[in-house]
Amino acid sequence: MADSLNQPRIVLVNTSHPGNIGAAARAMKNMGLQGLCLVQPQHYPSAEATARASGADDLLARARCFQTLDEAIADATLVIGASARCRTLPVPMLDPRACAALAVNQADSSRVAILFGRERTGLTNEELDRCHYLVQIPSNPDYPSLNIAAAVQVIAYELRMAALTATLPVGPEPDYASAGQLEQFYAHLEQTLIELEFLDPENPRQLMRRLRRLFGRARPDQNEINILRGILTAAGNRSR
Amino acid sequence: MADSLNQPRIVLVNTSHPGNIGAAARAMKNMGLQGLCLVQPQHYPSAEATARASGADDLLARARCFQTLDEAIADATLVIGASARCRTLPVPMLDPRACAALAVNQADSSRVAILFGRERTGLTNEELDRCHYLVQIPSNPDYPSLNIAAAVQVIAYELRMAALTATLPVGPEPDYASAGQLEQFYAHLEQTLIELEFLDPENPRQLMRRLRRLFGRARPDQNEINILRGILTAAGNRSR
Repeated sequence: MADSLNQPRIVLVNTSHPGNIGAAARAMKNMGLQGLCLVQPQHYPSAEATARASGADDLLARARCFQTLDEAIADATLVIGASARCRTLPVPMLDPRACAALAVNQADSSRVAILFGRERTGLTNEELDRCHYLVQIPSNPDYPSLNIAAAVQVIAYELRMAALTATLPVGPEPDYASAGQLEQFYAHLEQTLIELEFLDPENPRQLMRRLRRLFGRARPDQNEINILRGILTAAGNRSR
Repeated sequence: MADSLNQPRIVLVNTSHPGNIGAAARAMKNMGLQGLCLVQPQHYPSAEATARASGADDLLARARCFQTLDEAIADATLVIGASARCRTLPVPMLDPRACAALAVNQADSSRVAILFGRERTGLTNEELDRCHYLVQIPSNPDYPSLNIAAAVQVIAYELRMAALTATLPVGPEPDYASAGQLEQFYAHLEQTLIELEFLDPENPRQLMRRLRRLFGRARPDQNEINILRGILTAAGNRSR
């Protein structure tokens, strides 16, 4: 996974607010991206950029600055431009997920650059002309324009999701109770409810079925079944 | 699509930096979300929040402030907590995509709250106890902790992506118990376990937390909560 995230570079073009550069660096490092390029940032270096980068100041320190976009992408073989608007020019438009799939799939064979334009005006038509694809983050038509660091966060997140091959590791699987253990629990539960006179064996109605449905949804593990049966034993002892 | 995005609320708990509140509001409005709740923000209202909200100051102005988390989620029926860490107790952990699919699918039948904790320390264990699910944004293990507004941006983006592709739910949805009803049930359960001398209030250990995880996974509906409380009343009467 590391390689497919190390390689794509994020190119911020003519950014006005240094805080956005720092926040973009943080978003990149959080998602495991490495390569930040700055084209004519308006105020940089900047204490505000460093502050907003938080623990990602190393990534900021390694950022490469360029005078022109053409220099920043000279060796790139796949250039994708972020755009808030539908453009009239026939450049293929991707959503962030498709953009990430493309960039990650081609990380071995291409040098990928993803461009983010100015806070207010985005990328110029001349800059968009350099792009093989555009990527557009779906947004509220009444308020479509994301903060630039927020846009970098979304794209970087999708790159990481694409790079994660299978499912997320979320720790060891629970030690689920077996069907046999569950049946023993339900028998114990039914017996206790009869002792408590909460369940009338002459007229059981749907009570046990409802309780089975409830506990079945929870999928108790063995430890939880032990706790529940301990409670039933305590309640049963008291009812005698 | 609008409805499934209008409904879920974003709950920011004890946020330190007002700029993050403003940036979260902007991220929400960009993605078409509406409901922002603030629990004990440290500095609010704030000019910095308004500045960072940019054109989303209307959403910020409509944000509801609460003294406690329990008030903010009292009527919620699906509570999801954002967590940067793997927790040892088995609360189901979702990635942002699965979280969004769940929240959007249940937007008609549930009142959904997604909780974001403090900048440095996240949500406390007591706050996580209120959650049916946790959501974890996959991140760089060496630098896992996202800025809170960046985390809101990722979750809100996935909500919008899910809403764009949502299919209609089939069949009636359960009449889920609210967080307030669940708290009343847990209080009743705890009291009964003390009366049964199954729970030692001097040495409660993790018992109530484990039971919360179990019943939280099951997401009881109102009828089930009534049954469970009926059983507790029967057991409590017998133990006296």
